[in-house]
Amino acid sequence: MDNFYAPGKNHLFVPGPVNIPEPVIRAMNRNNEDYRSPAIPAMTKTLLEDVKKIFKTTTGTPFMIPTTGTGAWESALTNTLSPGDRIVSFLIGQFSLLWIDQQQRLKFNVDVVESEWGQGANLDVLAEKLAADRTHTIKAICIVHNETATGVTNNLATVRKLLDHYGHPALLLVDGVSSICALDFRMDEWGVDVALTGSQKALSLPTGIGIVCASQKALEATKTAKSVRVFFDWNDYLKFYKLGTFWPYTPSIQLLYGLRAALDLIFEEGLDNVIERHSRLGKATRLAVEAWGLKNCTQKEEWFSDTVTAVLVPPYIDSSEIVKRAWKRYNLSLGLGLNKVAGKVFRIGHLGNLNELQLLGCLAGVEMILKDVGYPVKLGSGVAAASAYLQNNIPMIPSRI
Amino acid sequence: MDNFYAPGKNHLFVPGPVNIPEPVIRAMNRNNEDYRSPAIPAMTKTLLEDVKKIFKTTTGTPFMIPTTGTGAWESALTNTLSPGDRIVSFLIGQFSLLWIDQQQRLKFNVDVVESEWGQGANLDVLAEKLAADRTHTIKAICIVHNETATGVTNNLATVRKLLDHYGHPALLLVDGVSSICALDFRMDEWGVDVALTGSQKALSLPTGIGIVCASQKALEATKTAKSVRVFFDWNDYLKFYKLGTFWPYTPSIQLLYGLRAALDLIFEEGLDNVIERHSRLGKATRLAVEAWGLKNCTQKEEWFSDTVTAVLVPPYIDSSEIVKRAWKRYNLSLGLGLNKVAGKVFRIGHLGNLNELQLLGCLAGVEMILKDVGYPVKLGSGVAAASAYLQNNIPMIPSRI
Amino acid sequence: MDNFYAPGKNHLFVPGPVNIPEPVIRAMNRNNEDYRSPAIPAMTKTLLEDVKKIFKTTTGTPFMIPTTGTGAWESALTNTLSPGDRIVSFLIGQFSLLWIDQQQRLKFNVDVVESEWGQGANLDVLAEKLAADRTHTIKAICIVHNETATGVTNNLATVRKLLDHYGHPALLLVDGVSSICALDFRMDEWGVDVALTGSQKALSLPTGIGIVCASQKALEATKTAKSVRVFFDWNDYLKFYKLGTFWPYTPSIQLLYGLRAALDLIFEEGLDNVIERHSRLGKATRLAVEAWGLKNCTQKEEWFSDTVTAVLVPPYIDSSEIVKRAWKRYNLSLGLGLNKVAGKVFRIGHLGNLNELQLLGCLAGVEMILKDVGYPVKLGSGVAAASAYLQNNIPMIPSRI
Amino acid sequence: MDNFYAPGKNHLFVPGPVNIPEPVIRAMNRNNEDYRSPAIPAMTKTLLEDVKKIFKTTTGTPFMIPTTGTGAWESALTNTLSPGDRIVSFLIGQFSLLWIDQQQRLKFNVDVVESEWGQGANLDVLAEKLAADRTHTIKAICIVHNETATGVTNNLATVRKLLDHYGHPALLLVDGVSSICALDFRMDEWGVDVALTGSQKALSLPTGIGIVCASQKALEATKTAKSVRVFFDWNDYLKFYKLGTFWPYTPSIQLLYGLRAALDLIFEEGLDNVIERHSRLGKATRLAVEAWGLKNCTQKEEWFSDTVTAVLVPPYIDSSEIVKRAWKRYNLSLGLGLNKVAGKVFRIGHLGNLNELQLLGCLAGVEMILKDVGYPVKLGSGVAAASAYLQNNIPMIPSRI
Repeated sequence: MDNFYAPGKNHLFVPGPVNIPEPVIRAMNRNNEDYRSPAIPAMTKTLLEDVKKIFKTTTGTPFMIPTTGTGAWESALTNTLSPGDRIVSFLIGQFSLLWIDQQQRLKFNVDVVESEWGQGANLDVLAEKLAADRTHTIKAICIVHNETATGVTNNLATVRKLLDHYGHPALLLVDGVSSICALDFRMDEWGVDVALTGSQKALSLPTGIGIVCASQKALEATKTAKSVRVFFDWNDYLKFYKLGTFWPYTPSIQLLYGLRAALDLIFEEGLDNVIERHSRLGKATRLAVEAWGLKNCTQKEEWFSDTVTAVLVPPYIDSSEIVKRAWKRYNLSLGLGLNKVAGKVFRIGHLGNLNELQLLGCLAGVEMILKDVGYPVKLGSGVAAASAYLQNNIPMIPSRI
Repeated sequence: MDNFYAPGKNHLFVPGPVNIPEPVIRAMNRNNEDYRSPAIPAMTKTLLEDVKKIFKTTTGTPFMIPTTGTGAWESALTNTLSPGDRIVSFLIGQFSLLWIDQQQRLKFNVDVVESEWGQGANLDVLAEKLAADRTHTIKAICIVHNETATGVTNNLATVRKLLDHYGHPALLLVDGVSSICALDFRMDEWGVDVALTGSQKALSLPTGIGIVCASQKALEATKTAKSVRVFFDWNDYLKFYKLGTFWPYTPSIQLLYGLRAALDLIFEEGLDNVIERHSRLGKATRLAVEAWGLKNCTQKEEWFSDTVTAVLVPPYIDSSEIVKRAWKRYNLSLGLGLNKVAGKVFRIGHLGNLNELQLLGCLAGVEMILKDVGYPVKLGSGVAAASAYLQNNIPMIPSRI
Repeated sequence: MDNFYAPGKNHLFVPGPVNIPEPVIRAMNRNNEDYRSPAIPAMTKTLLEDVKKIFKTTTGTPFMIPTTGTGAWESALTNTLSPGDRIVSFLIGQFSLLWIDQQQRLKFNVDVVESEWGQGANLDVLAEKLAADRTHTIKAICIVHNETATGVTNNLATVRKLLDHYGHPALLLVDGVSSICALDFRMDEWGVDVALTGSQKALSLPTGIGIVCASQKALEATKTAKSVRVFFDWNDYLKFYKLGTFWPYTPSIQLLYGLRAALDLIFEEGLDNVIERHSRLGKATRLAVEAWGLKNCTQKEEWFSDTVTAVLVPPYIDSSEIVKRAWKRYNLSLGLGLNKVAGKVFRIGHLGNLNELQLLGCLAGVEMILKDVGYPVKLGSGVAAASAYLQNNIPMIPSRI
Repeated sequence: MDNFYAPGKNHLFVPGPVNIPEPVIRAMNRNNEDYRSPAIPAMTKTLLEDVKKIFKTTTGTPFMIPTTGTGAWESALTNTLSPGDRIVSFLIGQFSLLWIDQQQRLKFNVDVVESEWGQGANLDVLAEKLAADRTHTIKAICIVHNETATGVTNNLATVRKLLDHYGHPALLLVDGVSSICALDFRMDEWGVDVALTGSQKALSLPTGIGIVCASQKALEATKTAKSVRVFFDWNDYLKFYKLGTFWPYTPSIQLLYGLRAALDLIFEEGLDNVIERHSRLGKATRLAVEAWGLKNCTQKEEWFSDTVTAVLVPPYIDSSEIVKRAWKRYNLSLGLGLNKVAGKVFRIGHLGNLNELQLLGCLAGVEMILKDVGYPVKLGSGVAAASAYLQNNIPMIPSRI
């Protein structure tokens, strides 16, 4: 049997991979198929149309690449930029750091704008750089919409405003891994040139599809981008899009059916309702943290994330112990603090196909764990605070009214 | 898509059918097989051996009948009794009532001992009847171990003591539908002659197997039992047991594999640990009910059930509204009040493959619903009371230490 | 791992349980649900409507009982008849024999009309009995539409004609276990009073639902039928039909979703196309048997079954060896010869969700096995004969044209 | 329902993605999990150990990259070579062509050795080139073990012998996509430096893991390889191997469990038995092709592939029609002819978790299709030829003896 078996459900509250809804698990429960039969292209066509909706784009071109978020990053960069290109990139946590590491290893000239972890991207510095860059040496702005390590959401609308204000032609590349399909994301409205996410995040699928969406401007940029690329080359996809067969190499049949089911569920709930639900879950979590007398790693309300909350623990507690204990005693999976905030924060992921009572079970668990590790929490306090808000705000389930 | 779709997991807290663990769902995810090949008898043999363990019997003979609990009842009665036989039967709630209805329709002479709903079987009356029955006209005592409608657990050890005290040879037939594999049940020690349960209860499987276990004395009784029976006839099974093919008609292949997986999980956790876990879940639920200022339908502690709690609501509230609202707003499934307690109680089933954080999520939900329907509950109070107990009592998960 | 593992697919050609289509396996891959929520009654309502279509009845009342075919038999008999009632029943093979055994044990006065195994029901004798029965002592005619042990299909239209001819009011009870949803079955047109099947047969589900359909006349008969019944009592169902909750006891959630999916597939293919497909599979199998120089157990073409073919082997071969070898060497599951034809026939089940290439793989396997056991078959001969017919008769797949 | 529904099983005989065994589908039927919990590293550790066995290496280092075969190729090249490096690469069909295309786009100096499609790699030319290359300008030999487009298996032992003969230090990079785990592949014995396969081929999983195995020499080469790489960088893996957490980014939880189950099945059968089974399936297919009077695209017996057979059709037939018809009429999936052999060949994939009766069903189907499209095949002839061989050579299933 299972080497790490525990009774009951695992309470999965890491910020990815997240809970897969039963209908999606069912849809993927299947044998392989010939991906060259008419069935797969027919389905792929609907997926490419529908996946644009979660980016809120009508003009973008999506690519569903058999890879992870890291591969999606690489695809965004290598298809649009050339080695040596100057890019402005914001370092605000572990995932923006890893992206910057990738940018540097891909030989770009990375102009790093660093913030303290727990703060958002410093857009004042961006403004200065744009203002100073009269000759448009900056080829791209790279920014994570939501930094998963610290629970910080950046303001993309402001980034666009700044670019427009300075009439700057830099491409806007956005990591939407822990935001798209959970937070309000508006590719067209914000003039995002490349946006990307991974299937295992708010789409609530297994890992395996990096979804990248490119603006017309980004597609144009591929023509001059000299970065070496083959597996990640969008042109290989575009060639097969034209042929109507769609796939330059073998896709995962199961993930395609899973994505179809996942999108169907999202549209059934309504994307805006999905976003609203994440807003409720985020708010409820923050109210609990406050009731526990703990601090959010995120320093200002404007950056609060509705998909992940990083909770600062007092100095006398090692946050890793909280995560270990959650798993060892309560069958609860929480996110570790990473790198600079290792030992200092633990993370509650509240994204994907998740409802309020699941979250409250998690919060009740966190309270017990806090007590386990010596923090003087009042049991029930966080749940009470979260419930008081939720009881006023949860809508009736439309299909059941 | 799903006509009643709601995001996130359904929180299933009816007292059956209960949550199926993922490894069991996986084990059942399969095509049919020839049940006459060597594979199925080989597995059946291990199931018949292992299923005895959950009845705590070494001398009993189990039958795994493709039916529900109602069919298992009928099997227990018709194999051991003849029309006109006098049986003493305890009416303490909806399920004992239904069994009695069956007993009467099967033409037995049913001597009904009724208690107020919320009380246990009146064993004083049993004592009187046994004392008076010098000629042994009573052929069987029929009793539910745990009345699912009211959350009342009867004391079977006392029943056995009374039978022994009066040297009475009546058969002891026990409905263990919502007890076996969750509450402490001791077939051999308590001299139970027929015990039965259904797969969809504490075994945490789909509905479809009525498991009936017969003592040697019960098997002996089949020889004189004149009740007409074919589908439910144990002798048809015994004939095939001897042949080593085990099945008089086609079993569900999927449920056999599911039962194998379910038993493996129970043995991996340890049956006594399973029972202990139910004790924790029951206790935690009752502490929450108390904190909410509500009454348990069960009137005395000696009858408290660790598998289901029926909660009395104030007269100005219709408990059915609580159940409806749970489903319509919170994706939470609670048990209705049935028959005499309809509108007066709602039920929290806490049996099967379930852990503490799942229960706390449910309790948090119940608090919000109570507020929804106008009961002045202090949000977080029940969760706090339950957590305080659980935080002191949950063991580390053995496989993860 | 699997104790009897073999690479590749198991080739399942027993006449039940049969292959489950992938979409149905997927539909059943789910947790339990509260069967008292609005979702389950809503689905049940559509199932009760749609299941009538496979019986070709508009006036019948269906019951989906958590049981096997044996239980469905018992339900048909006990709801419509009283102990001592005279019934005419045809013994033509193992399954009609078992039904007759049940009829006798249920205390009916069974007037057995026996045929040689391999022949159909002797309807001449029926005519004589009906003619002689001026006082209508015969209360019911019990007949299997398709005897699974010998591959004999009885002519139900003729039975109806005889009853009409003699103006005889006897009920017509039909075991359609290996016919309904595969052979042409016309409940209303043939005036069948009770028809029944099991989920694991042509519906291509797991075992677990006995589907019984009763005519108005049969429902009327329940009022006077004195056979003792509780679990199988249709009135308990009718009571819950009126309430709109449908279930007197807990159904299998998984099987309900599975049945929904199975019916959807059948209607997508078209019931008449399903029947046509079985006709092709039956014909192809018989052509192969002929090409091998073997005899069909069924003695006349009028009785040939399109769901199962029982193949007679020469006296120097034990047909059980064929079945064993099929499983041990080729991962092929064939049906044993039962009772009188044990050792003399092996059976190829060709019913349910099955296509022509699956059958040809089976036939190719049988050829090799025949050679293994010393029968001088010309390898490829059966496949050639079957293919020649099929290549002329398989239609294009409508969804793929 | 399914837009392209057809009754019965789909007969999947494309050379990838291939049939997934039921136990593997079951193992993958699960929710996501935290990949940073102890469970996933513990399982990953066993996978990395066990996966080496299918490469027949004890000294190699495996990488399980969330990508396809195309990505695995890129990983092999970029980790070991620098732009401008001279490599000798053999063009013998569509997949070697695509690899060469990748090599060129990755800026290597590709010395292409072309053969007619249907022939193996020209090793005489290799010998010449090695002989001439005194200064060791050739940095790597790139060769597909089995060209999936033409069904040609190259002789790797000879390649190694040549390298040794000339004392040439070039790296030996091998595409084993349609060979590893099906054909005899000996990484250590043949001194292969990088070998790779994809999960959707002989491992019989969904697409999604590119498995790459590197020799010590290949790992050494990473230190000087200047090709830009991040997502595919082995060093990122090695860093996490040292940490014992194994994953530089999120793996697919489902594929890890699936790979565990797939390896368990392969080891239960025995890798050499798996290879033997493929040998039987390949031989049987070729005998059928011969019996049909058709030619194998592969020109010499020494190159015959046991995983895929490309069948040449007469000039008056368009092989694409065969593939279309297979799908539209018989629910059979065959491989198209690609590029130079488009319209001229159709392919029968006979790799992965497949047994003999499945293949015979496919061959029977191909016969009917050949007749459909006007080729004068004798129905049954191919099946007869294949069966005659198989009936003499299929072993008993060990677990069932």
